[in-house]
Order: sequence, then C-alpha cells, then structure tokens
Amino acid sequence: MAKKDFNIGMIGYGFMGRAHSNAYCKVSNFFDLELNPVLKAACARNAEPLQAFADKWGYESIETDWRKLVERDDIDAVDICVPNNLHKEIVLAAAAAGKAILCEKPLSMNAAEGEEMCQAVEAAGVANMVWYNYRRVPAVTLAKNLIESGRLGRIFHYRANFLQDWTIAEDLPQGGNALWRLDVAAAGSGVTGDLLAHCIDTAIWLNGSIADVSAMTETFVKQRMHNLTGQVEEVGIDDACTFMCHFKNGSLGLFESTRYARGHKALYTFEVNGENASIQWDLHDLHRLNYFDHGDEGVVRGWKSIHVTDHGGDHPYMDHWWVPGLQIGYEHSFVHQVADFLDAHAKGQPAAPTFRDALETQKVCDAVLASAKDRSWHNV
Amino acid sequence: MAKKDFNIGMIGYGFMGRAHSNAYCKVSNFFDLELNPVLKAACARNAEPLQAFADKWGYESIETDWRKLVERDDIDAVDICVPNNLHKEIVLAAAAAGKAILCEKPLSMNAAEGEEMCQAVEAAGVANMVWYNYRRVPAVTLAKNLIESGRLGRIFHYRANFLQDWTIAEDLPQGGNALWRLDVAAAGSGVTGDLLAHCIDTAIWLNGSIADVSAMTETFVKQRMHNLTGQVEEVGIDDACTFMCHFKNGSLGLFESTRYARGHKALYTFEVNGENASIQWDLHDLHRLNYFDHGDEGVVRGWKSIHVTDHGGDHPYMDHWWVPGLQIGYEHSFVHQVADFLDAHAKGQPAAPTFRDALETQKVCDAVLASAKDRSWHNV
Amino acid sequence: MAKKDFNIGMIGYGFMGRAHSNAYCKVSNFFDLELNPVLKAACARNAEPLQAFADKWGYESIETDWRKLVERDDIDAVDICVPNNLHKEIVLAAAAAGKAILCEKPLSMNAAEGEEMCQAVEAAGVANMVWYNYRRVPAVTLAKNLIESGRLGRIFHYRANFLQDWTIAEDLPQGGNALWRLDVAAAGSGVTGDLLAHCIDTAIWLNGSIADVSAMTETFVKQRMHNLTGQVEEVGIDDACTFMCHFKNGSLGLFESTRYARGHKALYTFEVNGENASIQWDLHDLHRLNYFDHGDEGVVRGWKSIHVTDHGGDHPYMDHWWVPGLQIGYEHSFVHQVADFLDAHAKGQPAAPTFRDALETQKVCDAVLASAKDRSWHNV
Amino acid sequence: MAKKDFNIGMIGYGFMGRAHSNAYCKVSNFFDLELNPVLKAACARNAEPLQAFADKWGYESIETDWRKLVERDDIDAVDICVPNNLHKEIVLAAAAAGKAILCEKPLSMNAAEGEEMCQAVEAAGVANMVWYNYRRVPAVTLAKNLIESGRLGRIFHYRANFLQDWTIAEDLPQGGNALWRLDVAAAGSGVTGDLLAHCIDTAIWLNGSIADVSAMTETFVKQRMHNLTGQVEEVGIDDACTFMCHFKNGSLGLFESTRYARGHKALYTFEVNGENASIQWDLHDLHRLNYFDHGDEGVVRGWKSIHVTDHGGDHPYMDHWWVPGLQIGYEHSFVHQVADFLDAHAKGQPAAPTFRDALETQKVCDAVLASAKDRSWHNV
Repeated sequence: MAKKDFNIGMIGYGFMGRAHSNAYCKVSNFFDLELNPVLKAACARNAEPLQAFADKWGYESIETDWRKLVERDDIDAVDICVPNNLHKEIVLAAAAAGKAILCEKPLSMNAAEGEEMCQAVEAAGVANMVWYNYRRVPAVTLAKNLIESGRLGRIFHYRANFLQDWTIAEDLPQGGNALWRLDVAAAGSGVTGDLLAHCIDTAIWLNGSIADVSAMTETFVKQRMHNLTGQVEEVGIDDACTFMCHFKNGSLGLFESTRYARGHKALYTFEVNGENASIQWDLHDLHRLNYFDHGDEGVVRGWKSIHVTDHGGDHPYMDHWWVPGLQIGYEHSFVHQVADFLDAHAKGQPAAPTFRDALETQKVCDAVLASAKDRSWHNV
Repeated sequence: MAKKDFNIGMIGYGFMGRAHSNAYCKVSNFFDLELNPVLKAACARNAEPLQAFADKWGYESIETDWRKLVERDDIDAVDICVPNNLHKEIVLAAAAAGKAILCEKPLSMNAAEGEEMCQAVEAAGVANMVWYNYRRVPAVTLAKNLIESGRLGRIFHYRANFLQDWTIAEDLPQGGNALWRLDVAAAGSGVTGDLLAHCIDTAIWLNGSIADVSAMTETFVKQRMHNLTGQVEEVGIDDACTFMCHFKNGSLGLFESTRYARGHKALYTFEVNGENASIQWDLHDLHRLNYFDHGDEGVVRGWKSIHVTDHGGDHPYMDHWWVPGLQIGYEHSFVHQVADFLDAHAKGQPAAPTFRDALETQKVCDAVLASAKDRSWHNV
Repeated sequence: MAKKDFNIGMIGYGFMGRAHSNAYCKVSNFFDLELNPVLKAACARNAEPLQAFADKWGYESIETDWRKLVERDDIDAVDICVPNNLHKEIVLAAAAAGKAILCEKPLSMNAAEGEEMCQAVEAAGVANMVWYNYRRVPAVTLAKNLIESGRLGRIFHYRANFLQDWTIAEDLPQGGNALWRLDVAAAGSGVTGDLLAHCIDTAIWLNGSIADVSAMTETFVKQRMHNLTGQVEEVGIDDACTFMCHFKNGSLGLFESTRYARGHKALYTFEVNGENASIQWDLHDLHRLNYFDHGDEGVVRGWKSIHVTDHGGDHPYMDHWWVPGLQIGYEHSFVHQVADFLDAHAKGQPAAPTFRDALETQKVCDAVLASAKDRSWHNV
Repeated sequence: MAKKDFNIGMIGYGFMGRAHSNAYCKVSNFFDLELNPVLKAACARNAEPLQAFADKWGYESIETDWRKLVERDDIDAVDICVPNNLHKEIVLAAAAAGKAILCEKPLSMNAAEGEEMCQAVEAAGVANMVWYNYRRVPAVTLAKNLIESGRLGRIFHYRANFLQDWTIAEDLPQGGNALWRLDVAAAGSGVTGDLLAHCIDTAIWLNGSIADVSAMTETFVKQRMHNLTGQVEEVGIDDACTFMCHFKNGSLGLFESTRYARGHKALYTFEVNGENASIQWDLHDLHRLNYFDHGDEGVVRGWKSIHVTDHGGDHPYMDHWWVPGLQIGYEHSFVHQVADFLDAHAKGQPAAPTFRDALETQKVCDAVLASAKDRSWHNV
C-alpha cells in the first residue's frame, strides 16, 4: 500500500506523552495503514526535558509554545497530553487552525467546557477523538462484540470499579508536575474525572446512556501541602466517589472509584449481567475476559476464563500480534486506538469516542459531582 | 465432661429446618460441650410431611400447633424456621413461656416488630440468638480476628455483594411453600431482608454501625402469578437493592444484592480496605480468605489466598474438623453457631448475634427501603 | 420406605475412624436408603480412649480385641481403619465370619497380600469395598460422567499430583500412633501407598488400566527418631515418588506425590487432556471442576470453572444437600460412598471400588516401587 | 549519554524475526543505553516478502544470501532467526567474520553441533547469546532474585510444563515455511527442542545443573503429509516428551511438554519447592508470580499472587515501563534481553545465556531423547 505521512504534534511529555508516542512508533510495524504517523514535533514549556523526550522518541523538532505548534503547517494532528484545565484553550486554537485533534481524557473540566469544545471541532470540521483507551483492550472490544451480538439479552445490571491505593499517605503533596491529578485547579476533580470517567465511557459504550445518578464522594485527607504554593491547603479533589444509577435501557448501574483501596494498583473491573449471559473484565489481567452463558448445557455450565489471544478473527486486534497464548499489555490499547483513528481518518470517517461521545461522559461526571454535593438524585 | 441434655423444639421443616437439625445432630461429635442438644419435637401445620421430616432427623415427637410446642415443659429452646411474618408472634409466646429462642434471620418484618421482640426476650430474660450463620464461616471469623487485631488500621472502604440469578424467569410464581421469599406478605421485602440482611449483619460486626444510607431498589418483573391466590398479581418484593452508606467510623460502604445477576448462584462477597491491609471473602469459595498486607516487603507484596483449614489455633473452628487442606462447607457454619450458643448458654452468657444485635440490621434495612422509596438519604 | 438396620463394627478410631463414623451418622439424614447404618461396636486395643470415641459418636458397645468383634453375631459389616499392615489378617477373619468388609486404602501392603485378600472375600461371597473416597467428590464423579459420555474423545494425557508439606522437619519422629504413616513397617511405603494410591485409583477409574511405569523415589531425611523404639533409625519410606506411564488406551501418564512441596497441604490435582475437551480438578477447591471444550464457538472458548453445586440432576449427589451455590466439603465424599454402598448392598450388588478393583492400584504401586529401585521400566 | 550505533543484520523474517525487530525498535525508547541498535539489513532467500518485511520494520537494506550479510563491514551483529538446522553453518561463518551473534533457541540440532559452535565463537572472541527470552519476563527474573536471596532454602522439587494444543489435527502437514517446527530435518526434534528447551534453560538458571534423566516421548499422529515432498511420510518429531531427573543439588525434577494438551495455547509453567518457600509461574499470566513463604505468620499464611508491575526497584525491569498495575506482555521479554545484551556488550561483558550456557540445555535435550529411545536413565 502506498503510505502517506501523517504528522503528529505532541503537547506534553508525561506518562501519556510516552504512551501515545509509543503507539505512533509501533502502529506501522503491526498494522497495514494508508497513513503513517510521523513524530514531527513535541511541545512543552521546559526545553531541556522536552529535548530529552524528543530525542528518546525521535521527534524531529520541539516547540516550547503550544500556540506555535498549533500554527505550524507541517502538523496534521495535535495530540493533547497536558492537564485537564488546559484542554479547552488548545482545542479551540487547534480547531481554528484546522488540525485533527486527539485529546487525553477526560475531555474537559466540565460539561460546559466540553460543549464549547465539541462545537469548535464540529464547526471547524476537524477530526477529533478522546483517548478512552480501554475500549481497545481486545478483551473489552470482545465484550462489546458479545453484547452487540445480542448474546446477553436484556441487561439487568452493570457495575464497575476503579480501585487504586497510591495516595494513602498523609505527607503526599497535592499538585505540581506528576501530581497535577491531585490539584483540583488542574484536574477539575479527583477520582471522578481521572478514574470514573473511564468506567463511564466504557459503560455508555457497552450499555447505553445513563438517565440519573445518586452519588457520594469523600476526601479522606482534608489538607495537604501544595507543591506549587508551598502551603498546606484544603484538598479540593475527591479521593473516592461512588454512584448508583439507572441506565436508559432499564438496567441498574453501580460505580465506585477510589485511591484508598489498599492492595489495588489499577484495578478497573466491570461486570454486565444480562438475561442470558454475563461478562466480567479486570484491568489487572486485561488479556482475559470472563463469560457465563446460561445457554450452556447444565452439567458443564460455569464461568469461562477466555484468554483473549486467539487468531483467525476470533479475538479483536490479536491477529496483528504474536501467536495464541502470548499476551499483550496495557500499551497496546493505544496502538489499537491509533490504528483505528488512522484507518477512519484515511476514509474521512470519525473514530470513536469523538469529543461528542466523550461529552456524554462529562455530563455524567457533572451530575455525579452535583449529586454528591446536594445528596439528591440528578438527571444527566 | 458430664453432659446435660438441651431439648430443642423446631418450628418449620424447610431448608433452614434441615440446616439447623443437621447442626444439632453433628455438634456433639465434633465439639466438647456441657450441653447436648436433643431433637425433642418438630412442629408444622401439615402432619404427614412433618412426620417424614421428624423420622429423617430423629425428632422424638411432632406437634402441629406451635402454641402447644411452646408450652411443652420438655422443651428448653424453640428454633424458629418459618417465614418472617410469623416470627414475632412465636417469639412473644416463647419468651412468655421462658424458652430460649433461636430465630432465623431476618429477625422481623421491620424494626418496630423487632423492637417489640427484643423487649419481650429481654423482659423474660431468655437466651436469644438470630441465625446470621455466615459470621461462623471460619474465613469470616478469621476476618473478624484480623480486623480486631488492628492489622488493617483505619478503615476506608467496606463493600459487599450478594448476587443470585434464580428468579430470572417470567413464569416463576410468587409465594407458596418454598417460594414464600417471593411473597411480600410473608417475607416483608425481597433481597433486602433475604440477602442484604446477611451483608449488613457481617458489616456491622466487622466495621461497626452504619450512620446513613442512600438506596435504590428495582422489581424487574412487575407481575407474577401468586400461588396462594391463583391470580396474577403485582409483585411486592424488591428483586434488586443497592445502597451507599457512611459507617460511623468514617468509612464508606457500598452494598448490592440481586436475584438477577446471571451466573451467580449465591455469591456473597465482601471486601474491607484499611490503611495497612485489606481483606476479601467470597461465599462460593468460603474456605478461603484473601488478604493483602501493605507491610509485606515490596518485592513479595501481593494478595494472599489463605486456605482456611489450618490447625493449632491458626484458623477458627478448624481444629475440630479434619486435617489441614481438607475443606468444610456451608452447613458447618450452623454447627459452629450451635456450638457457640450452647457454650455461652451453659455459662449463662449471651451468644451473638442476639435479637438486640440483629435489630440493628433491621433498622438499616428499614432505612434502605425508605430511602429507595423517597430517593433521599436516611439516617439509620 | 421400610428401613432395615445394618450394624457396623468399626476397628480403629483415628482420623479415618472419625470420617467413617460421621458418614454413617449422616447418611440417613440426606439419603433415602433401605439400610440404616447402626453404630453397633467400636474396637481398639486401648479401652479408655476407645470408650471416649464410642461416647462421642454413639457406638453402642466397645471391643478391645478385633477377633471378638469379627465374631459377634450382631455385626453386619466390619470397617477397617487401622494401619495397613493389619488389613490382611482382619480381612481374612472377617471374610471367614461372613461379614461385609469396608477397608481403608491402600488395600494391602503389597499386591501379593491383596490377591490373598481378594480371594478370601470372593470365596466367602461377602460384600467388600475399599475407601478410595475421592471418587465420590461430586466434581470427580462429574469428571467421570463427562469422560464416559465421550465428550473428551481420544485421551492423550493424564497427569496427577498429590502434594503436601507436613513432614518438612528434621525432628519429626517416624512411627507411633498418628505417625504410623511414616513407619515403613506399618505403612509399607511412604507417599506411594498413602497419596499416589489415591491418584492411581482415580486414574484407572477415569482412564483405564496402566500398562507400564518408570518411577523415581526419594527420601529427603534419611534418619529419624523412631517413637516405638526410641532409636534414631534409617527411614524406610519414600518422601516423594514420581512416575511416568503408558495407559493401555495409548495415553501418557505423569504422576507425582511428595510431602516436601512447601505451601501445599493436601493438593491432589488431576488433569485429563482429550482430543475434544480437557478436565482439571483440585482437592483444595474440591467443589469446582475446570472444563475446556474445544467444540465451543471460537470467540467464547475458554476454561470453565464449574461450581459443582447445581440441582436437578446436573451435578452428582448435590440434590441431596443444600441449594445451588452452597458448597459441601471433604467429609461428604464418605457419606456418598456409604450411600452407594448401602444402596448396592441392599440390591445384592457390589459397590466400587471392590477389593479386586483396588488390587489393580496395588499392582501399579508395586511396579512403581520396583521401578524406582532398579531404575528401569516395569510392566504392571 | 552519547549514543553509539550498533548495526544489526537479521537473518529470517518469521515470528522470531518480528519479535526481535520489535525489541531493537523499542529498546532505546525505554532504556538508556550507550549502544543504539540500528536495523541495518534483513536477510532471507525470497526477496519479495523480505522487502515487505524490511519496509515494515525499517531495515535499511536487504540481502538474499546470508553469506553476504555476514561479510558486510557495516554489520556489527548477526541475529539468527532461521530453522535450527541452519544455525551452525551461519554461526561458524559469522564468528569467522568477527560478528557478535544472537542466535534463536535451541542453539543447535544436538550437543555435538553446539560444542562446535561454542568453540567457534570462543575462538573468535565474539559476543554471543541465545534467545531464551523467558528469563527476562519480570516475574521470572523476580523468581531468580528470590531464589538467589536464599529465601527458599534447600530446594526439594522443581517441576515445569509446556503445554500446547495446536497440532491436534490429523490433516496438519509436517514441514514447510511456518511449519518447519514439525519437520524433523529442520527442527531436529519436536517439543523437546521447541518447548522443553525453554523449560530446561530456566530450570538450570534457577536451580543449577541436571545430573541424570529418564524420559518418555510419543508421536500421536504417526504419518503426515510433508509439504516439501508432497508425500505422506512418517513423522519424525516427538509430539510429547516427559522426563524425570535429579538436579545436582539433590532436588527432583519433573518436566513435561506436549502439543496435545487440549485447552492450553502456550502454558509454560514452573514451580520450585524449597524448605522455606515456594514459587510458581505461568506464561498465560506472565505478569504474576505466585509465592508462598512458610515464614509468614500462621494466621495469614497463604499463596500470594504478586502482580509484578511495581516500581522503585521492587520488580525487575518495570521502572522502565508504565505505572504500577499496568501489565506488559510477551514481547517485552525480548526488549529486556536486548537491553541487557547491549549494556553488557558496551562493557565488554558476556550476556547470559551465552552459547556455552545454552549448550548445557542442549546436552540435557540429547540425554532426554536418548533416554526416551532406549528406556533407561542417562547421565547428562
């Protein structure tokens, strides 16, 4: 296939900057695509670490002002890997400049911002996508396929958890560099936008829209040193957030996220219970999908652990990798998302989740935070 | 040890009648107790199946009127294994007759009834206990011991599920004999009293009192044939019930129960997350306890699966059974509860959970059902 | 059903004496049988602990000389729960006295003794059975049913392990009371007769006869204090035994047992790999059976964990117990074996494994020990 | 750090050609190394698919004659990813040309060939390594570290399995392209060299040398169509191979590999039982290590499932990747091996396993095959 270069301008060089860069580097080794991503420029305020990052990943150039990057003619797409409070401004500028935009999740600080961003990209007619990468874990995509096929029948229950334990320490500062997720000014919320947003995105994808929510949040450590101000300040983020909900299809939802669940590093799990079958997944063993089919003969009915590494089209994306039995990992979800984006973009089609798709998650997050605040049910 | 007979009068011969009878039969084979339970009389309305039950288990006599049983001089204790709506009347009579009372859970139809029952047994000064048997699964007792020892430190989260799937069928009738749990008139509620009550009892035992709750219930099949009336009637019970709560110790709780979780037969699970350690348990593998200790050295830190069958005092109750590695089952929790009751009774001490203990669970259930009804937070 | 008493004379009161007594006590509570076992007499040399045992289990009388027990007219069956070196003499006497005989495993010290015992019971025409109890764990019986149904197709591999760790201690004595299994004079061999015999019995039952074997044994601690002599003596038993074999059906076998596998208490596992399906089982979670069916649709193919607690005939024996989801334990395998024995006996039929069935296991054990000694392949 | 290019000449473009290419591409993104691997040339007989491969991975040039590649001045290292029967000739030439050599496993067709190859690289003084990649799965390296630290104490048992099921089909041809592993002329042996060699390499690394072996092999399908001749021919490879052994440290070994274990795709597992602790690992969940420490307090003793993704030096290699909880996969073991090789090479040190290390595995394989043939024990 004749290849066409697709020039990436990356803003940010943290954890996500690395994960996305790796995806751009690997995708052409494993997928046959018309568009070949080129690491054209990396951008951040601090030139020295930025240059080290650019060298490590092979970016051809650097920029220390994102406005310059956005305006460069040799950039086809802008990838936004900076804290949430910076998303909107960059998106508006990039849309105005006619760039495709790949934005880290959550889309925005709140739904109002998100709406503005959606209108900007839609008005500009630029390709846009949000990095809810877990959709492209093969086991999660397989879950989607099983549900779409109708095997589960009517859905009764959807539950999801995202449990971590890394902030259980009174002396951990809030804010500053890698800790911006703990700073409400940069992140907008705590686990709600960071962790629950993933759970909600997957849930809506698998089970449709959420109608209403009742939520509870908690901040276990009320005051922390703020790295940017040097002061002990009140903590503005939620350490834990739980909510119950009704989906529009009549099923019940139950969601929990926390950074205070000792023993869990990044335990994102979901389960869907349908009339005929059920599905479970767990990020700590992301290459497996558990499946129960009530239609199985009684004597051999049970939960199956599907090792999602088969070829021949049985397991999504896996034909591109190794051989059955050999698992892939976390980073591959980003490779798949890039592959799907580039494939869609070459065809002039949108790649999900678009900004508009991600806005729905933002609205649920807003309703959740509002419900936790006034202790009442909120419609989404 | 010189043994003394302790005469049991059993009311009811269903599933629980069998489970309790088995416990009385086995306890003296495995425990050295001063009191030796004797199956003196079994009672139910229908003489023929009752006699068959009595023959099978070795009851010396039968009664078809529980009032007669309660009044018999040769009965030391009345065991109540009949539907929830009959508990109160029997308890009041048995207390008046000075009998020890062992009552199936939930204690009562509601907290008001329960308060009346507590006052009756306390006024009469009779021994009383409610069959929340899961406390005496060795792994659950071990969980209690670990928490009591302070290993977990400050508790942040408690979550419990009780998931079943046996009522997913539109043509299942409500009510009648073995199906009385589906009849709101006999059961008082659906999964709330049947399943969540177990979860709440364990939770309060392990983590202390619950302060407030926000709940959601659902009845997926709205109308069912009623076996007793022969009519299709509106279903009064809850098929699913979920609630969030605050414990008085500041931790957050999340509870769910349903009979519409395809693939789960009796999956009662709980998890407790503390500052220093976490615990998980699961009724489907009741002989195991999962434990994570953050104090373990980093290179070998992980979740342990403790096979709770060790001797030498390490694992509660297990010295009485076989050898390490050989698991016991569901029914043994009742044997342990009988052993603890008889031991306490011989010493003139109460055996937990008493009616008063169980009343606290009843109050939480009431608050949960009220919250689900008016969609607001309720204090317990 | 009109019941008929069936009088048991129990010889021995150790671990197995308890396990069998419990089975006789419980069987009539859970199974409808024509024969009702009665604990007529218990027998052992030492009267005092024997009387305590008899009191605990309700034996009507005691005997301190097994020859007297065997000759009593009021005994229908003799149950042999004494060390292996005593089996033959008792069996010959009991057969001569026309008693039914239930003998603990392994049948004998070696195949020659076993052959003599078989001839004695066959000549006398008395009912006979050996307590290879694991056949009656519901999950194991289910495995048998699945294989019998032809679902696995041609069998390629059978492997079994029995791993323990309780003798890893240099100061553990050999022999004396509960430690007779470590005394070669009483036990005949170490793990071969104690643990591998179980694995071999199940294997032959599930996969047919074994043709030839190549084995390796090891005694890790070469000398131990002998409790009966008070001397440090050379250890005569095997601490570990491994063998490879060919089954007559062309499949390959691999067996291992040891008491030096740190972390395993009683981990008896087996796996059968057939052309179309495979089966795994594990004594530490004896209520589960793992099953892989290659005939399942590719997208949802995987290993199933079957929670063997279903009713309606799906899962062997389980209709007699509680409700789906509630597990039974180790001791129930003995209850099932008694139920099957009594049922067969009432019909004048043999109950497997008979002495003749168990002799085949003995022959494999002999071949294994001979192979380990001369380091060559031996036909069975 | 100033980087220095290190030019790779790759011979072969199959499964391993891809896995190694990916490792060379990624290593500099994740590790700080003095040497930077450059994909200088790819080599194979068939130019067209070779060019496609080279384009996909970014090889700068191609060669269709490996002798030319070996002689090129701009090649620093030759990577051999062709069938086993071609290893020796290429190694001898590459050594003569002074190239570093990275050779796929198994090293050679037999130990005699291997010895010749070792002498060649040693005489030439060229760096040499064999791709036993599983040593660099973080969980396996962690196992090595735990054993080296002395935590296990005296080792009693080592057992390993490598189970697959992909050749269970009578109509699968032997030999030709991707199927060369089924052709005895190209592969030398079946599962012994393909699968057991991995198990043996890890075992020797973790537990030291093997003294003697007793083995059994089987070929379940005796005749298959040969793709290269177009004839149905006798199958020369072993479909299954099992062996028992003694390690020189006195522990017992048990190894099994097969391609006829229905339900297992690439289930490489090992377990080590020591006096004080035990370790288990499983390729199907390669990011976990199971660990049992008998020194743990009795009440909380159990098998730990260590999610080997922690940072701060706790878990080997993981600081280079993402964040705790996010797993890596199969391909990363190759990246680690390249990183270690380049690091050692820059320092003028050997990187294990060298050819000499791998020769020991070859000698065990030879002894295993000889033992299976004459049904007797063989010293290694």
